[in-house]
Formats: sequence, structure tokens, C-alpha cells
Amino acid sequence: VARTGRRPGSSGARQAILDAARKAFASNGYDATSLRGVARDAGVDPALVHHYFGSKAGMFAAATSVPVDLPEGLAAVAAGGPDGLGERLVTFFLSVWDGTTDRSPLLALIRGAASHEDSARLLREFLTTEVLGRVVAALDVPDPQLRANLVGSQMVGLAMARYVVRLEPLASADRSVVVAAVAPTIQRYLTGTIGQT
Amino acid sequence: VARTGRRPGSSGARQAILDAARKAFASNGYDATSLRGVARDAGVDPALVHHYFGSKAGMFAAATSVPVDLPEGLAAVAAGGPDGLGERLVTFFLSVWDGTTDRSPLLALIRGAASHEDSARLLREFLTTEVLGRVVAALDVPDPQLRANLVGSQMVGLAMARYVVRLEPLASADRSVVVAAVAPTIQRYLTGTIGQT
Repeated sequence: VARTGRRPGSSGARQAILDAARKAFASNGYDATSLRGVARDAGVDPALVHHYFGSKAGMFAAATSVPVDLPEGLAAVAAGGPDGLGERLVTFFLSVWDGTTDRSPLLALIRGAASHEDSARLLREFLTTEVLGRVVAALDVPDPQLRANLVGSQMVGLAMARYVVRLEPLASADRSVVVAAVAPTIQRYLTGTIGQT
Repeated sequence: VARTGRRPGSSGARQAILDAARKAFASNGYDATSLRGVARDAGVDPALVHHYFGSKAGMFAAATSVPVDLPEGLAAVAAGGPDGLGERLVTFFLSVWDGTTDRSPLLALIRGAASHEDSARLLREFLTTEVLGRVVAALDVPDPQLRANLVGSQMVGLAMARYVVRLEPLASADRSVVVAAVAPTIQRYLTGTIGQT
């Protein structure tokens, strides 16, 4: 399969991959879905899937229409080191939500996870494997997975409160206000004391 | 209408009130629903609604099958004063979720709010008027409504992460572990510094 250049059928192949990816993610969750399996289901060479989407995370973003390269953005967030990590993570998170003209794919992820076990599993595995795991894994802290869960709880709750249920004044507050309020929470969950001692 | 004693039709009247209350909450939201309006819709005396449910919050709890007297529990949480308020609030919140054998009414509230604007409005107004407003109103702090929103964001996110999406190890963690991790967040949102200065 040609990997570059315009040719007949390339947009058809891309669409076939996306259709197969959506089915695979919905049926098998995030962890059990592979580029190779999706390529097989779509009847294309795995190299073509790589060519179009780069990675499983990229394929997931395209299949769910989430308007951001999450792994790349989170790598930049994590690269700054532990100091100010909470502030950078909240700023990035809000920029994804506030920066897109169409929030419906993000809302669909949250709504699906709230309503369907398959969608909850997909979001759970994606968050664990790609998002929070990458940020927390770069830190040398005890209980990394619990910390990632706590960060996830505040981030999902922030999305619910600001964008779904739209509690005021939080929903209309400047991003800087939200960052100032929430960043210390995320920083403590990531690098601070979270136990009783 | 007789207000006490067993008599024919009393369970029918109670059911008629609950049916009318569900319709009113769903159509009009929390704030615009009144005991008097529900009584009229149900064709009963307002005193009977008071007799069965005591308050609008009690009628809401019965109509949604939420297994707790939230205003009473929150009044006890708030009565202890600002010291330790975050810990008492998180403990109470988890005891509501962990202490019930049937979480489906609570899950239905969260799922409904994530999926339907009417349900989101109902949860938003209920949280603002009855739950967070009461706790924060007892404090003399700047930006009380933003603080209530922030508390709501972490509480709803905690419910999503622990009970709906079930992130591990958070979902299986002892309540004391969760309280230790989350209480400082709630305490800061309620009484600490949430601005940039």
C-alpha cells in the first residue's frame, strides 16, 4: 500500500480504518485494541494505519473526534518537571475544552462514560494508559496510580461542573481564575501528601 | 384533609404527590417547583405534602429515591464549624454513597445531569440551593458561590471516578484513604486561598 501521495481510494481507506477503530474501541476497550487488529478489520496494511494516525492514541483521538493531540500536549506538560506541574496540567486541560469550537465530542466522552459501562471502561483505560499514567509516571512518588485517579476525579468533575452542569460563576469564570483555584489541588495530588500521615 | 392516622387512600395520595413532584422537578427545575404547586397538581391540600415530606428538599429526595436526608446531614456537617469541615463533608458524602445498598438513584442523578439539560439544571439548582449553599453560607468567606462550585466539582468528580467510571485503586480504596486524600482539597475550597494572590 502506498503510504504517501494522493491516489484514488485513500480517503476511503482512512474512513474504513476509522470505522473499524470506533467498533474496536467500543467493543474491546482501549487496552485490547491494537493498530494491527484495526488494520486487519479494515482490510488495510498496518503501515497505513501508522501513516494516518501515528499511534493508538492518535487513532483514538481521530475516532472520537477529540480535537487535540493529547499525548503530545501531555508530554509537554510533563517535560517541565514537578514544579508547577499542577498549573500546567490544569491550563492545558482548560485550553483543550475552551479552545475548541465544537465541544460535542468531549461531551460525548463524558456523557457516554456516565451512562454506559463499555464507554466508562474505554475512558477509564484511555485515561489510565495514555493520559494520567504518562504524567504521573514521570514523577518519583508513592501511590502513583491513586494519585492519577485523584487527578482524574478533579479533572472530570471540573469538566462536569464547568461545561456540562454549568455551575455559576465557575462556568463563566476566566481560565486564570479556575487555574488559580484548581492548580494547587492537582499539584498536591501529584506531588504532595495524600495520606493520613 | 386529615393529616394523621391510617385512612383509605393515603398511600394513593402520597403516590399522587410523588408523581406530580417528579413531573414538576423535571419540567420546571428545582427552584421553580413549590410544595403548593405540587399539591395543586396532585389535587391534595398543601398541608398533606408538608405532612409527608416536610420540605421541598424532602420531597425531592423522595421523588428521586435518593436514600438520605441531605439537608439534615449537611446541617450536622456545617454545625461543627469551619475546622475540619472538609473532612466532615467528604466523610458524609462517602457515607451516603457507600452506605446505600442501591446506588441506582444516585447514579441516575449523575447520569441524567451528564446527558440531559433539564436534569443538569435540576441537579445544578438543587446543589446550589440546598446542598452547597447551606454549607458555604455558614462561613464568612469571600467568593462563596465559586467555592461552592469548586466543592461541587470535586464531589461530582469523585462520584464519577469512584462509583461510575471506577478508576482503580480509588474505587476499592477504604473510605479513610479517600477522606485523607480529598478532605484537604475541600477544606481549601471552603476556607482557604483560592485566588492568585
